[in-house]
Amino acid sequence: MKAEIIAVGTELLLGQIVNTNARDLASGLSDCGVIVYYQTVVGDNPGRLKQAIADAYERVDLVILTGGLGPTKDDLTKEIVAEYFGKKLVLDQPSLDRIQGYFDRMGREMNETNKKQAYMPEGCIILENNCGTAPGLIVEEGGKIAILLPGPPKEMNPMFEEKVKPWLSGKTGSTIKSRTLKMTDIGESNMAAEVSDLMEGENPTVAPYAKEGESELRITAMAKTEEEADGLIEPVAKEIYARLGEYIYGEDDTTLVEALVKKLIEKKITISTAESCTGGLIASEITSVAGSSEIFGSGYVTYANSAKMKMLGVKDKTLADHGAVSEQTAKEMAEGARAASGADIAVSVTGIAGPGGGTPEKPVGLVYMALADDKGTIVKKLNLDGSRDKVRRRTVKYVFKMVMQRIDEKGDNK
Amino acid sequence: MKAEIIAVGTELLLGQIVNTNARDLASGLSDCGVIVYYQTVVGDNPGRLKQAIADAYERVDLVILTGGLGPTKDDLTKEIVAEYFGKKLVLDQPSLDRIQGYFDRMGREMNETNKKQAYMPEGCIILENNCGTAPGLIVEEGGKIAILLPGPPKEMNPMFEEKVKPWLSGKTGSTIKSRTLKMTDIGESNMAAEVSDLMEGENPTVAPYAKEGESELRITAMAKTEEEADGLIEPVAKEIYARLGEYIYGEDDTTLVEALVKKLIEKKITISTAESCTGGLIASEITSVAGSSEIFGSGYVTYANSAKMKMLGVKDKTLADHGAVSEQTAKEMAEGARAASGADIAVSVTGIAGPGGGTPEKPVGLVYMALADDKGTIVKKLNLDGSRDKVRRRTVKYVFKMVMQRIDEKGDNK
Repeated sequence: MKAEIIAVGTELLLGQIVNTNARDLASGLSDCGVIVYYQTVVGDNPGRLKQAIADAYERVDLVILTGGLGPTKDDLTKEIVAEYFGKKLVLDQPSLDRIQGYFDRMGREMNETNKKQAYMPEGCIILENNCGTAPGLIVEEGGKIAILLPGPPKEMNPMFEEKVKPWLSGKTGSTIKSRTLKMTDIGESNMAAEVSDLMEGENPTVAPYAKEGESELRITAMAKTEEEADGLIEPVAKEIYARLGEYIYGEDDTTLVEALVKKLIEKKITISTAESCTGGLIASEITSVAGSSEIFGSGYVTYANSAKMKMLGVKDKTLADHGAVSEQTAKEMAEGARAASGADIAVSVTGIAGPGGGTPEKPVGLVYMALADDKGTIVKKLNLDGSRDKVRRRTVKYVFKMVMQRIDEKGDNK
Repeated sequence: MKAEIIAVGTELLLGQIVNTNARDLASGLSDCGVIVYYQTVVGDNPGRLKQAIADAYERVDLVILTGGLGPTKDDLTKEIVAEYFGKKLVLDQPSLDRIQGYFDRMGREMNETNKKQAYMPEGCIILENNCGTAPGLIVEEGGKIAILLPGPPKEMNPMFEEKVKPWLSGKTGSTIKSRTLKMTDIGESNMAAEVSDLMEGENPTVAPYAKEGESELRITAMAKTEEEADGLIEPVAKEIYARLGEYIYGEDDTTLVEALVKKLIEKKITISTAESCTGGLIASEITSVAGSSEIFGSGYVTYANSAKMKMLGVKDKTLADHGAVSEQTAKEMAEGARAASGADIAVSVTGIAGPGGGTPEKPVGLVYMALADDKGTIVKKLNLDGSRDKVRRRTVKYVFKMVMQRIDEKGDNK
């Protein structure tokens, strides 16, 4: 079934609120095997709303509308939909009683205008609102379906989950499922180039996405059941792992740092951090993961040279000969942090995050990162661009990738 | 001018991401005196995208499209718009050079497909992308305007602010300007009560906002020119400073930590951090501010008790008698960090961020923070609720407020 979501509300058009309803409905609809082709936002304007509904039924057979079911004059969604389907609004006593009961419970007087909310298009399915006054409703006629839901997410979401979803899944008898493979160390275009043939597929589809220094491939299948969808997705996922497995660190909601901390815990590898330009960001990312205390005991933020020497034992001569932003300093920082913390692995970062501090030889974005473990110390050089914040955040990603690779080298990766 | 926003992306239709672009664009457009009549979302589908564009120009004269400017096969927005306006795509050498330069700086190979991003509709205005590879563009013909922007908010928002807004304000001849006064240590309602008379104004308007532990007053004026708008805003701002100046730490995009670092630099006060549950977040926030090296030399992330003892000299007995999350431990952490770092001020945090680790006596959200300086040591107890992330972030805010207050006590605050 093809659907369009129409969110009604001038505050959306003015950008005063973000349209989370469209996101929540879209994600819920695809779970029911409904394909959302369009999302639309219109203001509380009768003419434009009427036109939007007419346009929608040119394109799809299911239209979900949120908002405009309130008691005030400019809440018109129900009236316009009834008019579109040529249905009269009739008083629904049970709805009126529920609204009355709602006000009684709140110890508030029911305003005359609230009665408006109890008038429903004749012959519609009424969706009780347990979180507010405005009932939702479903109108079905001539192959066209309109589902009207209240605008406040607190009212809309439970109504959709409890009443609309079961009704729709019954209609479609099908479901859509997605699986996302998340990668590092490969750009979106290079990744896409590796699987361009798979991206031609219809079911499942394969689509690439890029997010700050990471790339994703999303496999989406439509089927009668979840199991069937998984069956369609699995071989494609296998093929992608065969081609790009080395870059894949996790799936779906897993973040790189979560995948790393999980792996460190599994392998019982402890880690420490020595940070100059990232200034504690690496440590704060690691400790943002619940359970990280199992593998992280201490971190060193050594912004000043004196701190690098005092806390990490970086040699005066090293700083004098090579400077704070150098391969040698990064190496001594990592080794110093490992010695001071007693951790299995220590990582270090020293660089120029900018916007100031750059020189022709050592420009903004120059970062050295090092990793010290029982096998020795590796140092990597990065040349990043972008804002101070971006340089710092991307450095953190590169550090996590470096650790990932290093511990994957250490024997098997189960 | 009437506008429609079209966001292009299957991930939006599937409800995998929320359409913050539409919100940001809508609010930015109204700043330029542009009225948004519709917002639409379509997938990466040539036919439907083409239809959506045609429909939009039936209703409005300005269409802003975001997304689909990437290097991959299914990025089609530019191609479809060029087709709609009957324009050829021609290689724009400066764009190609910028993209090449971007890859060079990243030390990454430029894939053939990336060249696609340098082909632009003939005669369009090109909008440089300083945060990514895909340039934006403006096509204007026969009274129709199309503005194409990249999908990632980190690329779209700066491009809109820096390039599109001035261009549009020039077109509409009217501009809306806002100035936001940001405050701490005063609740939204108390703040509003102090300026209720000013909130009656029509132009400029004064509106209160509350954001995680902070309060804001936004002054908004509409005028022909920026200068004229400033002229309307200035006297109102003066009046608010006269009434609430003691709470105002900054304006507009200034963050609390930026204001704090600025003040520390002005007063030549150095600071160090000792962090348990925030795990480096305080240090990383301080060092996120350019120039912070003037006042921040070192920080200690002491997640394990052993680290608290070794790095900060917290007494074994203190941890044994009172536990790691206690007033006494927080005090010794701050004093230890001050001694070890030689900084004028040291702050410490120890608490239970959750989700695990809580007990009836010491529940999740219990945090002790301390500040040690030449006047002594103060310790404050917090009981926060929310997720691990929220507890950590709110703790950081409270620590910054504590420092703000403390250094304001130290003599005058100019």
